[in-house]
Amino acid sequence: MQSNAKRPRVVIVGAGFGGLNAARKLAGRDVEIVLIDRTNHHLFQPLLYQVATAALAPSDIASPTRAMFRRDRDITVIMGDVTGVDTARRVVAIRETGELAYDYLVLATGAAYSWFGHDEWAAHATVLKSLEDAETIRLRLLGAFEWAESRTDAAEIARLLTFVIVGGGPTGVELAGAIAELARSTLARDFRHIQPAAARIVLCEAGPRLLAGFPPSLSDYTLRTLGELGVEVRLGANVEMIDAFGATASGERIDSANVFWCAGTEARPAARWISADAARNGAAQVEPDCSVPGHPDIFVIGDAASLAGADDKLLPGLAAVAKQQGKYVAEVIARRIAGRPAPGPFRYHDLGTLAVIGRSRAVAHLGRVRLRGFPAWLIWSLVHLFLLAGFRNRLMVYMNWSWAWFTYGRGARLITGIPPEEESAAPLRDETAQAAKRPRPAGTVLRS
Amino acid sequence: MQSNAKRPRVVIVGAGFGGLNAARKLAGRDVEIVLIDRTNHHLFQPLLYQVATAALAPSDIASPTRAMFRRDRDITVIMGDVTGVDTARRVVAIRETGELAYDYLVLATGAAYSWFGHDEWAAHATVLKSLEDAETIRLRLLGAFEWAESRTDAAEIARLLTFVIVGGGPTGVELAGAIAELARSTLARDFRHIQPAAARIVLCEAGPRLLAGFPPSLSDYTLRTLGELGVEVRLGANVEMIDAFGATASGERIDSANVFWCAGTEARPAARWISADAARNGAAQVEPDCSVPGHPDIFVIGDAASLAGADDKLLPGLAAVAKQQGKYVAEVIARRIAGRPAPGPFRYHDLGTLAVIGRSRAVAHLGRVRLRGFPAWLIWSLVHLFLLAGFRNRLMVYMNWSWAWFTYGRGARLITGIPPEEESAAPLRDETAQAAKRPRPAGTVLRS
Repeated sequence: MQSNAKRPRVVIVGAGFGGLNAARKLAGRDVEIVLIDRTNHHLFQPLLYQVATAALAPSDIASPTRAMFRRDRDITVIMGDVTGVDTARRVVAIRETGELAYDYLVLATGAAYSWFGHDEWAAHATVLKSLEDAETIRLRLLGAFEWAESRTDAAEIARLLTFVIVGGGPTGVELAGAIAELARSTLARDFRHIQPAAARIVLCEAGPRLLAGFPPSLSDYTLRTLGELGVEVRLGANVEMIDAFGATASGERIDSANVFWCAGTEARPAARWISADAARNGAAQVEPDCSVPGHPDIFVIGDAASLAGADDKLLPGLAAVAKQQGKYVAEVIARRIAGRPAPGPFRYHDLGTLAVIGRSRAVAHLGRVRLRGFPAWLIWSLVHLFLLAGFRNRLMVYMNWSWAWFTYGRGARLITGIPPEEESAAPLRDETAQAAKRPRPAGTVLRS
Repeated sequence: MQSNAKRPRVVIVGAGFGGLNAARKLAGRDVEIVLIDRTNHHLFQPLLYQVATAALAPSDIASPTRAMFRRDRDITVIMGDVTGVDTARRVVAIRETGELAYDYLVLATGAAYSWFGHDEWAAHATVLKSLEDAETIRLRLLGAFEWAESRTDAAEIARLLTFVIVGGGPTGVELAGAIAELARSTLARDFRHIQPAAARIVLCEAGPRLLAGFPPSLSDYTLRTLGELGVEVRLGANVEMIDAFGATASGERIDSANVFWCAGTEARPAARWISADAARNGAAQVEPDCSVPGHPDIFVIGDAASLAGADDKLLPGLAAVAKQQGKYVAEVIARRIAGRPAPGPFRYHDLGTLAVIGRSRAVAHLGRVRLRGFPAWLIWSLVHLFLLAGFRNRLMVYMNWSWAWFTYGRGARLITGIPPEEESAAPLRDETAQAAKRPRPAGTVLRS
């Protein structure tokens, strides 16, 4: 890659909502743009739970990043893993590839799940952040019913058919509602020995209400609606332990083969790369123009950044914030290069928040307007179809949703990716896996 | 699972074309049917190469088996791994689940790839048999272009952009043609540093012509057409070595990071389970009614069986043979239970064979009719759409094909499933992976 002496180079790390919008807005502004991401695709995270619950295929919500910028000859897309930044030499290090010099740097590296100091739980609970995570949840979810169908021990069947979701934010609520509908509708008549509709779904939230970012009246509606779907909601439930056999929340033991973790997030290590001050969740503390104190040419945006809004409260970790910050820093950089005055500080325009609970059930908080039920669900559906990148993805998601609406079916009910050595043993980890490998006495077999 | 004393139980192992059709035909015939498969889905293998080349999503060509039999209350579907058969006690052993008694047993376990005694090649070449295989090929294929884009060493770039396909049967031809179109059309304008259209695609066939099962005139057409697509075809090329850096065929060394194995197949171990005589490829030798000599209640069908046709030649390993045998053994079993005379020996009705080479290019051998080019391609498309199980899959495949036809795009260009420890290092295996982890000298970096 040769340097073009005439044009400054902007390196953007991360092709999520923030990085993508920064690149789009900078294209054609007489800069050279390099967009680096660890994957080859932009992922539409708001619909990731639908991949996890077999409603959509991974390719329905992900688009190859370089195809999105095919016509922007100023933009080079690189699939690579950034491992650090040398702010003195102004280079970004990419694993096994080398270094890349920058004139301006935009770090939009997003967030990962935080285990609140209990990293050992990661071995027993599944998170939902990447397409791989979604496929792992799909494997465990669909696999639990399959494995239960051929088991004879009632306690083991009950453990396989108990799903614990930790975290009552939008992801936890969406996942709990979708699992309930999968068990009660889609799978209801597909088994001969187990009753999928009898599956237990427990949603544990440490705080006093679900969807803490929404007005209390919508939290109440969500609680009621999840109850109608058969989800057991535990409020004020502190998860104290997750192991191979289940979870303990505020003293209550729940035997479960399937614990899904949708609790707190933690910024990816952008702040550490540049030795910036970080908030408690690891997000870099930035100036009102999203630049890093002492490094006016480095910007951190989205979930990787910690910035207060107009009301002095920290901006939430939402796609809308990342998108607006991406466009904003592109404008800051373009103006600085052109020698024009900087825009005012970043201002987040809250266009509203939406969360879906299930079929025809959602909540919407749009300024002073609060909607619930079918109207909110319709808005949620239309907004998400509209926000999806690319005509093909919109069409495919629309078709899948329409098909699911009429048939209660789910189009991506695939179990793939079982590690060969633990095939069929997936629900039984650690000690149980060993026990399970011993042949069972003839009395417990399927037909004696 | 309790035995029903009134009705005999038919256990079918494998939910491929053979097992699925046996189950369908037996449904409602006053038998209890248990269908066991290692996966939860029926896979439409003829389109697997389109998943491998990012044209279709995995869920487009796979349907959950138990959903297909939702309304057949006589059929129990079990996801499990059969590990053996006790013919004396008439039970099937399922890993970690127990034993399952049968009155009649249908083994439809299919075939896997054979390495012709070179099992060590499996570490360096990828096969195409399961959805996981297809996703691995997709990862390597799309990854090769991504990794080449950020490399500076010309030899390494050339190695990454060289694709070797071993085996000139239908799968090898389809894969080679699809990779050529991916490189020359879909990806052509998406990169800034490499020329995807300059990728080398080498197809090695040990025999004297491609598609040996077709008439020679269609083999000639296939050879010519692949040449037009830029595929280098090597006939009479014996692969002598596959390692981490490429392959050697009849003395010619081809440096390549991507070797795909579509050569011979080997039956899965059904014959060994029942100690039946096996052909050289491991397939069980069966009687003219597909039963196993000495075990009139056990049937082996499809790729797992070795049976001569009316012309004394062994029946080919085709979906059509497996399907017809599945229906045939269902009839044999149903008649025997009803005390009616057995049907005549199995007769394969050859409805023709089809293979696709690329966009608007295919060959068709339908009795005396030989077609090539667009007419053959149209028949291929319609037949495959028709044969796909389920309205949803047909619709999705039709939509994806239409979209690809007009845009030359591919809807499933996702790289997922990179093992965490070798992230970004995937094209560099064994010794090279070690070397690659050493930091490179500053002179070889992207921008010095």
